[in-house]
Amino acid sequence: MTDSTMQVYFDHNATTAVDETVMAAMLPYFQENYGNASSSHSYGLRAHRAIEHAREQVASAVGAMPSQVIFTSGGSEANNLFIRGVADSIKPATLLVSAIEHPCVRRPAQALAWKNSQKWQLDELAVRETGGVDADAAITALSKIRPAMVSMMLANNETGVIQPVAAVAEAAAALGIWMHTDAIQAFAKMPVNFAELGVHAMTLSSHKIYGPKGAAALVIDQRLPIKPLIYGGGHENGLRSGTENVPAIVGFGVACELAVSRMAKLAAHTRSLRDQMENGLHEMGAIIFGGEVQRLPNTCYFALPDIEGDTLVVQLDKAGFAVASGAACSSATPGKSQVLEAMQVDPMLARCAVRISFGIANTSQQVTDFLSAIKKIADQLKHLNVMFGA
Amino acid sequence: MTDSTMQVYFDHNATTAVDETVMAAMLPYFQENYGNASSSHSYGLRAHRAIEHAREQVASAVGAMPSQVIFTSGGSEANNLFIRGVADSIKPATLLVSAIEHPCVRRPAQALAWKNSQKWQLDELAVRETGGVDADAAITALSKIRPAMVSMMLANNETGVIQPVAAVAEAAAALGIWMHTDAIQAFAKMPVNFAELGVHAMTLSSHKIYGPKGAAALVIDQRLPIKPLIYGGGHENGLRSGTENVPAIVGFGVACELAVSRMAKLAAHTRSLRDQMENGLHEMGAIIFGGEVQRLPNTCYFALPDIEGDTLVVQLDKAGFAVASGAACSSATPGKSQVLEAMQVDPMLARCAVRISFGIANTSQQVTDFLSAIKKIADQLKHLNVMFGA
Ligand SMILES: Cc1ncc(COP(=O)(O)O)c(C=O)c1O
Ligand SMILES: Cc1ncc(COP(=O)(O)O)c(C=O)c1O
Repeated sequence: MTDSTMQVYFDHNATTAVDETVMAAMLPYFQENYGNASSSHSYGLRAHRAIEHAREQVASAVGAMPSQVIFTSGGSEANNLFIRGVADSIKPATLLVSAIEHPCVRRPAQALAWKNSQKWQLDELAVRETGGVDADAAITALSKIRPAMVSMMLANNETGVIQPVAAVAEAAAALGIWMHTDAIQAFAKMPVNFAELGVHAMTLSSHKIYGPKGAAALVIDQRLPIKPLIYGGGHENGLRSGTENVPAIVGFGVACELAVSRMAKLAAHTRSLRDQMENGLHEMGAIIFGGEVQRLPNTCYFALPDIEGDTLVVQLDKAGFAVASGAACSSATPGKSQVLEAMQVDPMLARCAVRISFGIANTSQQVTDFLSAIKKIADQLKHLNVMFGA
Repeated sequence: MTDSTMQVYFDHNATTAVDETVMAAMLPYFQENYGNASSSHSYGLRAHRAIEHAREQVASAVGAMPSQVIFTSGGSEANNLFIRGVADSIKPATLLVSAIEHPCVRRPAQALAWKNSQKWQLDELAVRETGGVDADAAITALSKIRPAMVSMMLANNETGVIQPVAAVAEAAAALGIWMHTDAIQAFAKMPVNFAELGVHAMTLSSHKIYGPKGAAALVIDQRLPIKPLIYGGGHENGLRSGTENVPAIVGFGVACELAVSRMAKLAAHTRSLRDQMENGLHEMGAIIFGGEVQRLPNTCYFALPDIEGDTLVVQLDKAGFAVASGAACSSATPGKSQVLEAMQVDPMLARCAVRISFGIANTSQQVTDFLSAIKKIADQLKHLNVMFGA
């Protein structure tokens, strides 16, 4: 393991460093303006105002109204709030989620269906081999299955593939189906507009957009029937109780402003690094997952056939590069990639998957260095494979 | 409203400022060691190790094992996790909670009972007029009602009154009843030992003990049947998914160490301030709630008859003192105090309730200044009452 100062960080879809302006905005809320936002004295009022300001920043970044923003502790909580909160408010029926949703959408959906007493049925929306949900197939499925709710992410965390959310949302609205999109990975990397997407609920998260961990939001249409996941003092308009994490929410607000102001720049910068990277990887015989369709500009998900992803990640780490293996992209307890499985990627090839996700501070020199490092490592590993037969 | 630098903060049961040593420990995890603790590269490993170290600090502060500590985003989430997590794991039955529990215990318990499909029954454990649950009455209730689970806090957030948790837990264990205690207010102010209390689950929170907002824990007995409230990537031993809030958890760990090391000092210091305060308030004709029984050393809950608590809080704020009104102690949307209602306090008197809760940085001079300020305000308000007839 190399020192943090030497490591090149290529794992921005996992989490990001807190931006300098975000950090500066948060700092006064730990030891000076540390009040509980529910308190009626001045400390409380300052905290309350800071939260309401952040709510405006989040809302305005995605074309929503401040009253539509429900702050939660993270993206997983927000996704669970949608699934269980809506399920607790309506008659049991069918729930449809895409096959490439993050576990924090798939698992609460499964948990709902497992409880027989609750009578929920879970159905899955397939994806094409290229990594995207087919809009027409999805719309057909909606009219056939008539689920009560559907969840489809805006961009996938592993492949970066962008999903046809607006088209499906239009059909869902026409059929009276409550539709949610997890926009965590899309946000800050491409335009995200709640009103234009036409969904009833959308998840955003702070720590993927250079904000702090500990803050996220479920943006909701006021007509959505939804109950809290966490009950108590009645914070967040009764939908999420608990003392608000003021510094984290303040940081999230600033990060949203930053996201909008530099989206185009960030997209262009990471896209050029990605092109450079994929050119180099292609020369090495790499396969790029989702490479044929519209993707987030910062994400490169590839496999070098016969070189196991987990092994490659460890060797790259030793060489000073932090990247993710496909198996560990979205879970605390790595297994195989559900996303690649849904794309019907050969399991042998899926085991070789590695994800690089670029961020604002990455440079072309880092890509050059990475390409020479990975070539060396790949040669060594192939040599071992030949020697020991893998 | 006065400037933050001038305000005296007497509301430590609502939240506390982050301690200097805690802040210093957290800072490196925002912009340097910002990795996702689930990532397998060096950034991830450093974050993972930091969390496991914090887990040891939390566990050791309360006589538990690290594997028993489930980190959550806050106390409300941890209490909801106990109620709903256990309810999701066992056959519907009766659930017993004390009448003075925080809303984040009472409301999820009510939500469970409201859902007819789930067939849960909610029963309440009464308290005496002095503010405490009667141990014998509670034990009798347990054998009569035979609930499947019971929740009783260790010390109340409004009165500070300490509850007979160990005695009730012994009876619960003998009867096969799963018992939880919310130790959020007790922790750092009096000894709290998970093993000695003999409960199956216990809630702790960071921001009440000079740690940051955004971290808390449910400490559990390994035999407790419990399901997650938030499903997803399988973090926290499968019981709480979502990217861990590394800086907040690191801060919580350090705050736990600090709590143990200075508990005696903090208790003695705040007790002496409280005695000074209550002597002065007695002279003004104040009534002290819970004053006849064992209380946390830092909490003073009083009423000046005929002076409305909310009005007093506003006037004291203008005079530079941050205190809480009884009505706003535990909710984002103030109503009347459920705790005083449970204690059968006359509603007219309950409306006059004000809570002062001392912390490490408060001084005797602040108490002296407060007493002269409140005397002046009380005289003015009484004068107005006489003039306008209140
Ligand atoms: C698409 C997507 N949804 C949800 C999550 C969960 O967010 P968190 O782990 O911060 O709760 C993530 C990130 O891990 C993600 O990439
Ligand atoms: C006894 C008690 N339990 C639970 C809570 C809820 O904690 P939080 O608001 O931090 O989630 C509080 C504080 O508000 C409390 O005093």
